[in-house]
Amino acid sequence: MKSSVPKLLHKICGKSMLSWVVDSVSNAGAEKVLIVASPQLSASDEIYQIPASFIAQDVPLGTGHALLQARGEIESFNGNWLIVNGDTPAIRPESFSSLIQQHESSGAFITVMTSHDPFNGNMGLISRKNDTHYITAILEYGDKDYDVDVSSEFNVGAYCIRSELLPAVIDKIPESSTNEFYITRLVEIAYAEGLLVDSYTIEDPDESIGVNTLHDLSRARLVLQNRINTYWLLHGVDIIEPCYIEIGVHIDKDSVIYQNTSLQGDTRIGTGCKIGPNSRLIDSSIGTDCNIFESVVEGSTTENGVNIGPFSHVRHGSHIESGVKIGNFAEIKNSNIGKEALVGHFSYLGDCFVGNKVNIGAGTITCNFDGKEKHQTIIEDGAFIGSDTKLIAPIRVGSNAITGAGSVVTKDVKAGTTVVGMPARQINKKTSLSSDYGKEGTDSGC
Amino acid sequence: MKSSVPKLLHKICGKSMLSWVVDSVSNAGAEKVLIVASPQLSASDEIYQIPASFIAQDVPLGTGHALLQARGEIESFNGNWLIVNGDTPAIRPESFSSLIQQHESSGAFITVMTSHDPFNGNMGLISRKNDTHYITAILEYGDKDYDVDVSSEFNVGAYCIRSELLPAVIDKIPESSTNEFYITRLVEIAYAEGLLVDSYTIEDPDESIGVNTLHDLSRARLVLQNRINTYWLLHGVDIIEPCYIEIGVHIDKDSVIYQNTSLQGDTRIGTGCKIGPNSRLIDSSIGTDCNIFESVVEGSTTENGVNIGPFSHVRHGSHIESGVKIGNFAEIKNSNIGKEALVGHFSYLGDCFVGNKVNIGAGTITCNFDGKEKHQTIIEDGAFIGSDTKLIAPIRVGSNAITGAGSVVTKDVKAGTTVVGMPARQINKKTSLSSDYGKEGTDSGC
Amino acid sequence: MKSSVPKLLHKICGKSMLSWVVDSVSNAGAEKVLIVASPQLSASDEIYQIPASFIAQDVPLGTGHALLQARGEIESFNGNWLIVNGDTPAIRPESFSSLIQQHESSGAFITVMTSHDPFNGNMGLISRKNDTHYITAILEYGDKDYDVDVSSEFNVGAYCIRSELLPAVIDKIPESSTNEFYITRLVEIAYAEGLLVDSYTIEDPDESIGVNTLHDLSRARLVLQNRINTYWLLHGVDIIEPCYIEIGVHIDKDSVIYQNTSLQGDTRIGTGCKIGPNSRLIDSSIGTDCNIFESVVEGSTTENGVNIGPFSHVRHGSHIESGVKIGNFAEIKNSNIGKEALVGHFSYLGDCFVGNKVNIGAGTITCNFDGKEKHQTIIEDGAFIGSDTKLIAPIRVGSNAITGAGSVVTKDVKAGTTVVGMPARQINKKTSLSSDYGKEGTDSGC
Repeated sequence: MKSSVPKLLHKICGKSMLSWVVDSVSNAGAEKVLIVASPQLSASDEIYQIPASFIAQDVPLGTGHALLQARGEIESFNGNWLIVNGDTPAIRPESFSSLIQQHESSGAFITVMTSHDPFNGNMGLISRKNDTHYITAILEYGDKDYDVDVSSEFNVGAYCIRSELLPAVIDKIPESSTNEFYITRLVEIAYAEGLLVDSYTIEDPDESIGVNTLHDLSRARLVLQNRINTYWLLHGVDIIEPCYIEIGVHIDKDSVIYQNTSLQGDTRIGTGCKIGPNSRLIDSSIGTDCNIFESVVEGSTTENGVNIGPFSHVRHGSHIESGVKIGNFAEIKNSNIGKEALVGHFSYLGDCFVGNKVNIGAGTITCNFDGKEKHQTIIEDGAFIGSDTKLIAPIRVGSNAITGAGSVVTKDVKAGTTVVGMPARQINKKTSLSSDYGKEGTDSGC
Repeated sequence: MKSSVPKLLHKICGKSMLSWVVDSVSNAGAEKVLIVASPQLSASDEIYQIPASFIAQDVPLGTGHALLQARGEIESFNGNWLIVNGDTPAIRPESFSSLIQQHESSGAFITVMTSHDPFNGNMGLISRKNDTHYITAILEYGDKDYDVDVSSEFNVGAYCIRSELLPAVIDKIPESSTNEFYITRLVEIAYAEGLLVDSYTIEDPDESIGVNTLHDLSRARLVLQNRINTYWLLHGVDIIEPCYIEIGVHIDKDSVIYQNTSLQGDTRIGTGCKIGPNSRLIDSSIGTDCNIFESVVEGSTTENGVNIGPFSHVRHGSHIESGVKIGNFAEIKNSNIGKEALVGHFSYLGDCFVGNKVNIGAGTITCNFDGKEKHQTIIEDGAFIGSDTKLIAPIRVGSNAITGAGSVVTKDVKAGTTVVGMPARQINKKTSLSSDYGKEGTDSGC
Repeated sequence: MKSSVPKLLHKICGKSMLSWVVDSVSNAGAEKVLIVASPQLSASDEIYQIPASFIAQDVPLGTGHALLQARGEIESFNGNWLIVNGDTPAIRPESFSSLIQQHESSGAFITVMTSHDPFNGNMGLISRKNDTHYITAILEYGDKDYDVDVSSEFNVGAYCIRSELLPAVIDKIPESSTNEFYITRLVEIAYAEGLLVDSYTIEDPDESIGVNTLHDLSRARLVLQNRINTYWLLHGVDIIEPCYIEIGVHIDKDSVIYQNTSLQGDTRIGTGCKIGPNSRLIDSSIGTDCNIFESVVEGSTTENGVNIGPFSHVRHGSHIESGVKIGNFAEIKNSNIGKEALVGHFSYLGDCFVGNKVNIGAGTITCNFDGKEKHQTIIEDGAFIGSDTKLIAPIRVGSNAITGAGSVVTKDVKAGTTVVGMPARQINKKTSLSSDYGKEGTDSGC
């Protein structure tokens, strides 16, 4: 892979290549999953999230050698083993199920998953005896008899094998000229012993992807992204391609995901939403009938009927209540924005609790950082924050209070009062907005 | 479709699926277009924009039943009927014309549009008598004789039929086991009556798309978007794919549309422009030699030689005169920006009339909303608005006037004067800029 | 092409179509490159960057006529001439090398590069004598014998020819009915004279692209972009497609380029970076372990561990030192940002020298333009610039100095002091930040 990341931990649409294989095997009904892996892989933090047992392969001496590490486990289990290469992330659970089903009904010792469309030019080739049903060997690329013109059936890298004779057969895997042991040698050993080796052929060539380079990884991503997007298209979600929807995302029907949108992590989208184009949502939960244009939302939730964007950024820990309108160039961090509040333009609300029907003027900034700590700002229901107001936290602006354009508010503002200036001072008491106070400098850009 | 939107009203590249079919049929020369549709579809607002007559099909009893609803119209017209499924948006007008032309020259009773490349695995199959030219039936997926190995000619869902005998034949359509009536049964009825049924085969498999799921819709979008983009590429517009150009857009030659750009609605682009990447233009008209990078322009016009972006937002009702430069993080709404004005950064101009050669400093905000109404700002030719100026509308800044950085301007500013402070007060009179006034705080970020 | 740009100067992934061909020929080992070109092409500025000699073809009378313009050069060189159409940008150097190698070993007079997969429907066809190895003619589309059913071998537009007899053969090229001279006629002339004409067939159909329309250009871009991206994927760079990486870019291994990112010009990316999605980097150099989300960086450099974005814009001449964090909606132009400085949000830093560990509050603006000239701002190590501070340049803020929120700073600020207000005045002396000064209005949004 020419990469510092262990091959099987490279990410595809939100989970590692290894997780794709483990989840597929599990969904096909595996009772238990064992992973034989290098110490480097086993030491990775990410590995702990994978529901499987790990067996160390201390030296990388090939797939057959990996199998030998699990010899004890193999002996102690009586049934069928499904043995899969870890770098085949695109095999569907349904294909594993079909492989197992055929294996069980045919009574073969080994059933090899094969494909007639090679993903790479160097896949193992199936060799048969005189066109019969009997597989005699899997020829590795470079073997002397390797000849694609004779056989066009390729080894995908997944095998179902009966457990009874398996330990004995494993022990006979010969050492290769490069001092490795290949699992594919099991086939010729079985054939020599008179054991039946059969194949189960998958029809979708995309499933046969084996990842050996980042270029292969890129192709696997296209295949699996297409599979995820097709799933949502068939469940009532309209998608303008390309979109990047990770495996853990949920989208309700009647929503539209516009082009070049990324939905990542544990993101959930309600019904009737329009998301994108060019939006990125990470670990966020979006209510119904929301629009999020050209914006980034991270670790936050919105209720219903929320509009965001274009070009806004909702950061971690924010909760946007229903009917809120967030326009362009707004940044919201770790804040609650109350129902039907307007945050039209150019403002930074950090560590802030905004009440209902508050109007945040253009250029409003919550000055929440004093160089050492972050402080909270509270803006109560119906307050009208004039353009370019600076709110020096910790601070509270009372309900229906008004701040003048350009004011620097250093003290709490009482409910229903108006403050202007730098630092801001109370100029009168009002309980409702009127059109003439504008000349005091209290207007808000909208 | 698993969608609340009626199937035929789903949008593809700027118009509904139904409009694609109607426009294609009309462009092929149809004298009159009838649409047989469900009451749900007929009740839709969008339907009124489609140039066709509607006939209600109150219960969805199949395509043959739909035809029966139009029986009166069919009887009253003597000529050829072109009958098309509404979910086949990709058939070209040229293909309809060729179908009609062959139909007229062959003298067939029915000519069926067919394809040798199935879009879906469940398209109707053409059955012929002993390899002759005579079509005996269209087999539906699930019919007992349905066998793709025998016939690889598929029914696209468009038919040209002579009107004389049509009403009588329609009446003979049998009820299916699911109590529906299929138009495809016309073929076997015609065959039984000794009427010639011929086929016209289209070569481009993309035309045969029939949309039954949102996944099909997604594929149809790719096909039709590619067709639109190819049209512009062949008319001198360079496009870096992917771009999302709707059907109603016009682009002059020698412009370049960069990747991931959306041109929507009634948008027109002059010659010599560079649009994108990542721009979105909606119902906007762009002059010649304009650059619009990573920006959104809605319902606005620009004259020639205008630069916008990256990351700016021109909202509805704006008119940008020639030579204007709008930099990053600028929002302009319902405003006129005069020739060669500079709006470099971070500013909100709403309900504003800006004269020629005005300089708008970074952070300028037109405070146009007093909580009840929006007011206008006028900035006359050659004015220099210092950084972070708040203009409390309604207000007028005279020609060549200057506002200091951070000023809150609450009263009109006379031509040629300078104001600073909060609220802003006149400090001297100047008729031209000089380098020393900077210390008064009048500079503008640029 | 229906374009004002000369065909061969259209850009593909960062260099002109002509440069693609010249570079490919040069990399195949050409001793000298001659370009026969129209005066319009020769007059272009861009042409001077191409390492080749130019010969004018004053009137466009076809490829054979172009060859005639180089007759003198051809006579004076004894060896093999590789003659290539300028509109075939996708032929690999390796293919040219193989063509030359086969030509030299076969002893043919002409070796024609051919393909079995036509890119266009109108490519020249190879005609052979009774299925022998001898090529008798290249049939142009429209010639009476042109028949794709008989021959499916197409002329790519590249020829290797022995120099000895070439001048004499060129002179015999007949005038076509359109008064042009075609290089392809050389083949039938050679055949008539008993000279061997052989072919070298390329296997990758993408290499045979000949560009005659902007639609062809679009296809060539896809092919060459895919080739560039595959190169980086195979060199340890992970790419989420689509990405737009120009030919002159360098990326170190273990970096990830996310979807819809453009890397243009002379851009270099260090190891361990995450770039994109939706970023655009032009002529910029990025250190190791940097993250650049949804941002534009032009003509600038960053050191290691720098974070930028989303939605920020680093303009020409900026240098960002290690560990700097630039958040959203920041614009930086022609500035140095010192180590570990924070530029969290909404700020414009132009012509600015920022020291180490400086905190730039939200809404900070360097007012660097007085209407006539740009001036410099210096902010020394450890300074804390409060939110919405306007710095009227030229100006210097001393180390560890503090400016209050909303202040307009018109005079230099001494090290360790605090200034507030408009214009800003010193309020006390401090050498370190404390939590209580916040009430003076000195907080910064973060």
